[in-house]
This record gives sequence, C-alpha cells and structure tokens, in this order.
Amino acid sequence: MRPAPDLSLYLVTDEAQCAGAGRSVLETVVAAVDGGATCVQLRAKDADGGPFLRQVIEVCRAVGSRVPVLVNDRVDVFLAARELGARVAGVHVGQSDLPALLVRALIGDGAFLGLSASTDAQVIAAQDEGACDHLGIGTVRETATKTDAPGGLGVAGVARAASLVELPAVAIGGVKAPDMAPLAAAGLAGGAVVSAICCAPDPRRAAAELLAAWREGLR
Amino acid sequence: MRPAPDLSLYLVTDEAQCAGAGRSVLETVVAAVDGGATCVQLRAKDADGGPFLRQVIEVCRAVGSRVPVLVNDRVDVFLAARELGARVAGVHVGQSDLPALLVRALIGDGAFLGLSASTDAQVIAAQDEGACDHLGIGTVRETATKTDAPGGLGVAGVARAASLVELPAVAIGGVKAPDMAPLAAAGLAGGAVVSAICCAPDPRRAAAELLAAWREGLR
Repeated sequence: MRPAPDLSLYLVTDEAQCAGAGRSVLETVVAAVDGGATCVQLRAKDADGGPFLRQVIEVCRAVGSRVPVLVNDRVDVFLAARELGARVAGVHVGQSDLPALLVRALIGDGAFLGLSASTDAQVIAAQDEGACDHLGIGTVRETATKTDAPGGLGVAGVARAASLVELPAVAIGGVKAPDMAPLAAAGLAGGAVVSAICCAPDPRRAAAELLAAWREGLR
Repeated sequence: MRPAPDLSLYLVTDEAQCAGAGRSVLETVVAAVDGGATCVQLRAKDADGGPFLRQVIEVCRAVGSRVPVLVNDRVDVFLAARELGARVAGVHVGQSDLPALLVRALIGDGAFLGLSASTDAQVIAAQDEGACDHLGIGTVRETATKTDAPGGLGVAGVARAASLVELPAVAIGGVKAPDMAPLAAAGLAGGAVVSAICCAPDPRRAAAELLAAWREGLR
C-alpha cells in the first residue's frame, strides 16, 4: 500500500499567475513549501512537453524530498522525469484526461494518482474503480483557473460529496484562507489552492497562513 | 531493426480543418488511406488526453493494419492505446516536445519515432543522437498549421537539409500536389501534407492525386 500523502495544504501551480506576481513556478513552489505547503501539483496545460519536463525536474530537485510532487495530466512527462531519476511522486488527472485505470497501469503501483471529480457520480465511480489514491473535488466557488469543472459547490457541497467515499479528498476551486478551517472541520483531507499562493505577494507567508487556518479547523 | 515504413504520402491530421470540411478525423483518414496515403500521424495539440486516446483507437481500428499510425507528441496517449491493444505504430515529436532519447526509452525499440527538424543543426543532431527513425523537415513554405517551425525552406532547402543525413526524411509545411514530384525527384522519402487532404472536398481523390504526383517524380 502507498502511505497517504499529507494533503493538508495542496498547491496547484499556474505559470501565468506566478509570472504575473513576478516569480517563476520554481520560486513559488520553494517559497510555498518553506511556508508549509504539504503537497505540490505542477499544472501547465499550455506548455510543451520539453519545457514542462524541465520544470518538473527542477521542482523535484528543489523540494521532492520534502513534499510529494505530482504532475498534472501529462503521464509521459511523469514517466520521463522518473526515467531521469527525478523524485516525482505521481500524477493528477481530470475527467477528460487519460482514464484513471489506464494511468494506473502506466505509472505502476508505487506512484500516487489523484483524480478530479465534481459530481456525486464521478466521486463514487472513482472509488468503485479503485485506480486513484485521492480526489480533488470542486469547485468550491467559481474560479478562472479550473475552467473544466462546474463551479460553486461551496464548502458544504464539497464536504457532502467527499463524505460519499472513503478516499481522501481535497477541496479545489477558489479556495482562500477563510475556507481552510471550515474545510478541515468538515472532514476534508486538505485544501487545494492555486491563486491564493501563486498570486500572493509573499507565497511563503500565504502558505503559512493557509496551513495555520487549516490547523485551526482541526481543533 | 525496424523496417522503414513507407512515408511516400504522409498524412498529418488537423481536427479543425477536417471539421471545416464537414468530416471527422476518422472519416478523413479512412478516405485518405483508401486513396493511397501510406502513413498517418494523428495530431491534436488542443485536445485533452481522453478524447485524443479515443480518436487514436478508432483510427487504428479502421486503418492500423493497412498503414502505420503515429501519435503526435503525446507519448502517454500512445502508451495507453498500446495498453488497450490498439495497433499504433509509433510517435512523432517536435523540438519542444519530450526529448527524442527519452521518448525512445519510453516507447521501446519496436515503435517508430519521427522527429521534426528545421535547421541543419537539428537534422544532424537527430542523426547523431540515434533515437529517431525518420525526420519531418520543413516548412517547405509558410503555413498556418505548423506554427512551431520556421517557414519557407522551399523544396530545394528541404532536400539540401535532408541530404545531410542518411535518416529518411519527409518534407512538411504547405506541401501541395505540385510539390510532390519535385520532392520525390530530390530524394526525399515522402511528402507530408495537412491541408492538402484535410481541407480537400474529396480526401480520397486528393490522396490519389498526391500519390500519383509523387510516383511521377520517381520516374
């Protein structure tokens, strides 16, 4: 069995947002992990495979021994990074990416696999299928980043969907610091954030505040 | 050793162009192979992995025993299709995709690997590296489809670049029927076309004319 990674503060990167804040993805990730981010998913929907692979390798070299680093969508980039010896932990896919069962066959049993879900049916199917290790459920509220998911389930809606299964689930989509305590209290495994860290003036401090808020909700 | 595929008339698909002509990619490929296309590369830069995988499987089911079907860029889609038993022949990558040596490691020795090149240095590096089986050199002339390559080498420029190496090379980028005979006469291994088939009112007839022109140039 794979030990469940700590998903409490799960950073999903957005290169344009990082650039808008005057930083690279690598700089943002390092600062966020210094601040307390517990898991990192590298997402680069518009990047070619070559530059994305270089980003994955750089980030894994910088933080891969401290937190799990997951690759969004591109199973081939994950496989190439592993082939090069990078400490890359797994893959995250959405409903329109390669099917989770096939991804599991390609990455093997030792890697983590996350799956996005936004409806009850998707959440239950993910558990029944048995391919993924954790879910990203959302969106919590409308967001410009995750355009492939229906919006506005709210904390209560995400928590209700997560309660349908035993798989650990993080809430994603417009999650901000004030959401973290309610999400923790509602039994989620974590809060996934994009702009709350990528757009922050100080991503280390933003991560520290998000994690503190999460822990507050666990009391 | 992999036997060299027949690259004479090499179709690269473009979903938007096929749709503009009122056809699916599958319909276009079947018609083109009926007309004489000898090799097919499925290219879907903007598609998600799931829909692209379905397209690859459908096309392989329809024509994979008649001509080699290559997957553009997405090594993971190739691996997933093969995992599902599809008769998919290989992968084609560009200079900004995953590096050819890594792709070779991921797809194994039994699969074909094509690589795009547009400069003398890229052509020679591809041969020295030893990872790919054939090259796509271009563009022959400016084109809206291949926006990642410098334009306008012309038939003579492509032929000169191809002559630098022993790897088989197809010319790509704005190739039309009148170019096919000169390309064949200049020693290329084939002509790769996108819009000349994908936009054609009758893709079967377009393919037949392109192949006839190619053979004319071999006399």
